[in-house]
Amino acid sequence: MRTTALPTLALTIGDPAGIGPEISLRAALEPDVRAACHLVLVGDRIVMEETARRLGRSLEGVEVLDTACLDAVPPFAQASRAGGEASYAAITRAIDESIAGRFQGVVTAPINKLSLKLAGIDFPGHTEIFGERTGAPHFAMMMYSERLAVGLVTCHQSLASVPGSLTVERIAEVGRLLSEAVRRIRGHQPRLAVLGLNPHAGESGLFGDEESRVVIPAIDLLRAEGYQADGPLPPDTAFSPGALSRFDAHLCLYHDQGLIPFKMISFEDGVNVTMGLPFVRTSVDHGTAFDIAGKGVANIGSLKEAIFLAAKLAV
Amino acid sequence: MRTTALPTLALTIGDPAGIGPEISLRAALEPDVRAACHLVLVGDRIVMEETARRLGRSLEGVEVLDTACLDAVPPFAQASRAGGEASYAAITRAIDESIAGRFQGVVTAPINKLSLKLAGIDFPGHTEIFGERTGAPHFAMMMYSERLAVGLVTCHQSLASVPGSLTVERIAEVGRLLSEAVRRIRGHQPRLAVLGLNPHAGESGLFGDEESRVVIPAIDLLRAEGYQADGPLPPDTAFSPGALSRFDAHLCLYHDQGLIPFKMISFEDGVNVTMGLPFVRTSVDHGTAFDIAGKGVANIGSLKEAIFLAAKLAV
Repeated sequence: MRTTALPTLALTIGDPAGIGPEISLRAALEPDVRAACHLVLVGDRIVMEETARRLGRSLEGVEVLDTACLDAVPPFAQASRAGGEASYAAITRAIDESIAGRFQGVVTAPINKLSLKLAGIDFPGHTEIFGERTGAPHFAMMMYSERLAVGLVTCHQSLASVPGSLTVERIAEVGRLLSEAVRRIRGHQPRLAVLGLNPHAGESGLFGDEESRVVIPAIDLLRAEGYQADGPLPPDTAFSPGALSRFDAHLCLYHDQGLIPFKMISFEDGVNVTMGLPFVRTSVDHGTAFDIAGKGVANIGSLKEAIFLAAKLAV
Repeated sequence: MRTTALPTLALTIGDPAGIGPEISLRAALEPDVRAACHLVLVGDRIVMEETARRLGRSLEGVEVLDTACLDAVPPFAQASRAGGEASYAAITRAIDESIAGRFQGVVTAPINKLSLKLAGIDFPGHTEIFGERTGAPHFAMMMYSERLAVGLVTCHQSLASVPGSLTVERIAEVGRLLSEAVRRIRGHQPRLAVLGLNPHAGESGLFGDEESRVVIPAIDLLRAEGYQADGPLPPDTAFSPGALSRFDAHLCLYHDQGLIPFKMISFEDGVNVTMGLPFVRTSVDHGTAFDIAGKGVANIGSLKEAIFLAAKLAV
């Protein structure tokens, strides 16, 4: 007999023209998902009803929080204003209900940026919507898989703007968030690899001074606070097999420094985690896959990983 | 009966305190190396004599071009001014003799930057020494293995200085050098993947404008000249299994954009190629390995790959 209550998680169904609704329903019906959490699908009920009909499955026993945004189910594989509005309505509803305490976490199925744009909603991605709407003062993105965890000090911004965005406090802040998140997942104090910004981590100041000016002071600060942090590591060898086994997580200074290696190592099963929000938020690491939308063939592995990770982080 | 003359290659023995001399001798004695080229070791003869003695091998049949820089063989595993001077003397001698026509190519064993510095020689690496001493107007570094080839538009400089260093002409120039080098190795016109600078290749200008301002015009220029170039690719998915099979070489805009994935894919057998010199130059992709120097246990695989690639590019 279980004595611990399962966490209640929202699953936003994503753009109705993509694979979001079908993978959401299929995941919600999986026995291991049901054993891990109480899942509530957030989106338009008419989309979920149509999805169930197409898949030959039943919505019985699947809780749907109807955002009732759409008049009709949009066609597959087309970005649209209606799809963008529906996607955004589900996300904001899930956020608001989480803040109100109904959900301990939100898992998001893929949205389409063009649909969002057509709906007049201008965010580079989910992460920024969550950051703004929750008013979280400090948040950051982590990509997680069993084999690699990367935390990003900067994310969706030009490479030219990265060096100027790096401060001791921001690097330390993301280091804390990453360390706390990975500790909750792995059950022990993680060893963080902190990367340098420049080739060879600056080669003692020969190629840039950010290592001595901001990275090393941030590492010192993290250590003084009791975190395990090493670096700055030369980026090009930080993901060698030896380094991967020596560290539990990599603190990366910009988007591609973390995501190039992450997508090479965990192309299929990565989970996107927003750290620093008042509740847990995870996401699949793939897009709307318009090319196979509606066919019921999309892989639900990444979404299931995102649900399991949210459940683990929520308790 | 062979009718083609083998290329004559110089092999600089590297820092005498590291594994350079021993791997140079062991490679020079390998039958497949002897079948691929006529190899001349360039460095201090007294170092090679001592190396042969320690390994229990003979220098007979191994041509040594004595740079006669040292009075005594320096101890292992210590950076030193003498070691730096000897390393540099071998490199400059190999370059000068190549310009004079004695060698068709130069292969370099690892040097130690601290030794070079102690000797008052201030270069970030071999590549820059070759560039300056040959007076080559345009040169660039390629990392090559059977599985991945990356050309670097910028290399040993701070990340902050990268965006300002990118011009249409420089990107196109390295694209040409990369395409020509890979064509000579693979025997067909290679398909180049040209990477964007920013996350998601700028997301249509949302995160930086370098893609539209310099990368796309460079791709257009390369195509107009008959090269096969695609892009700008979002960097984080440019090294997925699908992308790796679709392209023969990746044109990367900065050091770690190319070297993070390269060292993940080809940690053991990468070859460093300097493109754009008046002669071929390749190098091992590892350092002096002071921890195992003198023990005769260092792996000679990378050096042999460097020699074979130089021989292939030289003919």
